[in-house]
Amino acid sequence: MRNVAIVGGGITRFGVREVGWKDLVQEAGKAVFDDVSNLDRKDIDSLFVGAAQPERWVYQTHVAPLVAELLGVDVRRVIARTEVACASGQAAIRYAWLSIATGLSDVALVLGVEKMNTKHMNISQTCMVNVGNREFDGVNGFTAPPFFAMVAQRHMHDYGTTKEQMAIVRVKNAKYGVMNPYAQFQKEVTVEKVMGSRMISPPLSLLDCSAMTDGAAALILASEDIARKLTDTPVWIVGGVQVVEHSHTVNQMGDLSEWKALRKAADELYKMTGIEAKDIDIAEVHDCFTISEIIEYEELGFCKKGEGGKFIEEGESYIGGKVAVNPGGGLLANGHPLGATGIRQAWEILMQFRGEVPEGRYVSGARIAIAHNLSGMAQLHHLMAYSVEKPQNLKG
Amino acid sequence: MRNVAIVGGGITRFGVREVGWKDLVQEAGKAVFDDVSNLDRKDIDSLFVGAAQPERWVYQTHVAPLVAELLGVDVRRVIARTEVACASGQAAIRYAWLSIATGLSDVALVLGVEKMNTKHMNISQTCMVNVGNREFDGVNGFTAPPFFAMVAQRHMHDYGTTKEQMAIVRVKNAKYGVMNPYAQFQKEVTVEKVMGSRMISPPLSLLDCSAMTDGAAALILASEDIARKLTDTPVWIVGGVQVVEHSHTVNQMGDLSEWKALRKAADELYKMTGIEAKDIDIAEVHDCFTISEIIEYEELGFCKKGEGGKFIEEGESYIGGKVAVNPGGGLLANGHPLGATGIRQAWEILMQFRGEVPEGRYVSGARIAIAHNLSGMAQLHHLMAYSVEKPQNLKG
Repeated sequence: MRNVAIVGGGITRFGVREVGWKDLVQEAGKAVFDDVSNLDRKDIDSLFVGAAQPERWVYQTHVAPLVAELLGVDVRRVIARTEVACASGQAAIRYAWLSIATGLSDVALVLGVEKMNTKHMNISQTCMVNVGNREFDGVNGFTAPPFFAMVAQRHMHDYGTTKEQMAIVRVKNAKYGVMNPYAQFQKEVTVEKVMGSRMISPPLSLLDCSAMTDGAAALILASEDIARKLTDTPVWIVGGVQVVEHSHTVNQMGDLSEWKALRKAADELYKMTGIEAKDIDIAEVHDCFTISEIIEYEELGFCKKGEGGKFIEEGESYIGGKVAVNPGGGLLANGHPLGATGIRQAWEILMQFRGEVPEGRYVSGARIAIAHNLSGMAQLHHLMAYSVEKPQNLKG
Repeated sequence: MRNVAIVGGGITRFGVREVGWKDLVQEAGKAVFDDVSNLDRKDIDSLFVGAAQPERWVYQTHVAPLVAELLGVDVRRVIARTEVACASGQAAIRYAWLSIATGLSDVALVLGVEKMNTKHMNISQTCMVNVGNREFDGVNGFTAPPFFAMVAQRHMHDYGTTKEQMAIVRVKNAKYGVMNPYAQFQKEVTVEKVMGSRMISPPLSLLDCSAMTDGAAALILASEDIARKLTDTPVWIVGGVQVVEHSHTVNQMGDLSEWKALRKAADELYKMTGIEAKDIDIAEVHDCFTISEIIEYEELGFCKKGEGGKFIEEGESYIGGKVAVNPGGGLLANGHPLGATGIRQAWEILMQFRGEVPEGRYVSGARIAIAHNLSGMAQLHHLMAYSVEKPQNLKG
């Protein structure tokens, strides 16, 4: 396997954008080409597009070659759109990584995009019932908020986690979001404000939830020799793993407060890379809801099972704590354009490693980062590990 | 890169099936597990699902983990759904190949599926306008039949290709389809019958066109050491390449009768593998319309540019001719369930190499095969090469 690095990235402002899907693609494309300005666009041989449901939101499929046309990319090795719902973006990075690692591709563009806000928001929201097992759960209107509400209820019951602790996750991520000019939400919030926001599905209030967002993000990945020519600050991909629990259907699931698939994925990633939980400087995790981030602390091994609430309460996931979790504001502040989120996370890690983020959300001296996505009803977990050092130079 | 082989496959009957999407998945799953009966299903670590538009046809997205649940596959390395419209299935094979080649995966299930016939056929057909550039072409109702009709007109104009020659492509593929119990259409046709069938878009008549089809197909891929344990007849993947022309939008396209992307892809594949056009025993090509197969003879190098009509007229693409093209009946006889087609092609090659097809469509002694898909308005071409011998043993 050849070493593979991220050599540059670009992102659009996330939010309710008054532009179309194609505009988002071109905005992220311009941003990434500006960032890797010494790259001849002709050297890009492959293209990977992360997109969850353009078929429904913008009535467009076959999106990968359309992106090639919109950005003038001369694909001649590998091209595909990847879809795994909320983790479609990370899947695109993984496919690019493997294509370059094998030598099939040398330089790849990876772009994630989603246009979720349309003039017909009832349609936008209806699309979300297609993510679960539609015939069992979707038809009953069972989307993410009620599912994660059940998760939160169970975690509160099993471990005494409180609504206040969940609210602090939002407070933390909002604080970093203020310093992120690309984030959908750039306002600080208080625990009181989170807890007092409109109830969505008990115990989750509006500010416990991430949003329906428009946005795109892009990366350039390259093999080691080319990466060295393009940048002095490559970010190396050092490992990646995905684990599914069989239960796509909610009535088949086990204990909702335990995410065995994530625990298994983390164990495997740590074994694969030699990284231990304590080595991780930055964790970009999938805080689609506040409770998610709390469970992720636990399953990723940052704290003991059941102590995720205490972990955030004690400030351990703030910059300066045991591990900086979502120093870019996470999904809660950035919003969650499904296909773009996984790529936004890698972009954040790139900017952090390069020191190109404002002081207040900069994780000084960070060398090892992980990115985590979950998709659907948290039955599928996706992890990638990144480092400033090449895989073989990594110390566990 | 590790060597990767197809060790088994299974397929559903293709056609207008009175079953649902999930039934198709399970039918193909059972078929592939029956075929590789000495495989412990627990050894499958990865899953790749080729699917074009389940979001629109069956209102279901996030299909990869749903397939994992339906088939009881314990995914713990890589999982994704791949989409490149009509070539979504081949893209899934490619991703599995690269995952195993790098060592990330050892044994992968690859499954392609599409349920295109619904109770609301107007919806089914409307979905096809999303494949092109919807805002320029789709809104004008510009789907595949009028596009390929323009291609045919241009080829007739440039090279003197005749409607009779196109009809012979259907006659050949129908002949082999009769001997394929999984094909949608299992009736012989005559040139007269093809030419006399209902006009769809001049010069293409109904029998010049492939169909809207329900179906699924599945493969097991494994690394060399595991493949050796599972089968005495592995089919090795020896190369693969995809090439895009920039023109997703029809008014930006060049000469419609020349498919430069396919020529470029073939040149690259031949260079990558050491195979020459004359070495190929079986070519599974994307005969979505009769004219497509004629142009594919030319761009793949089986005959000179413009002589594709003559090539079929002289019987050179029949079994026993220069190269056996679509000995399983191609898309014209099998039908074209978008996500399943690319996998059905690889399955056909597997069955041919194993000698498990009826005498009349058996390509005796075949050792090298290619599979070709195109997607959208033929701007994106996808090629894979397969052999009974490992890549390093290949003689050009």
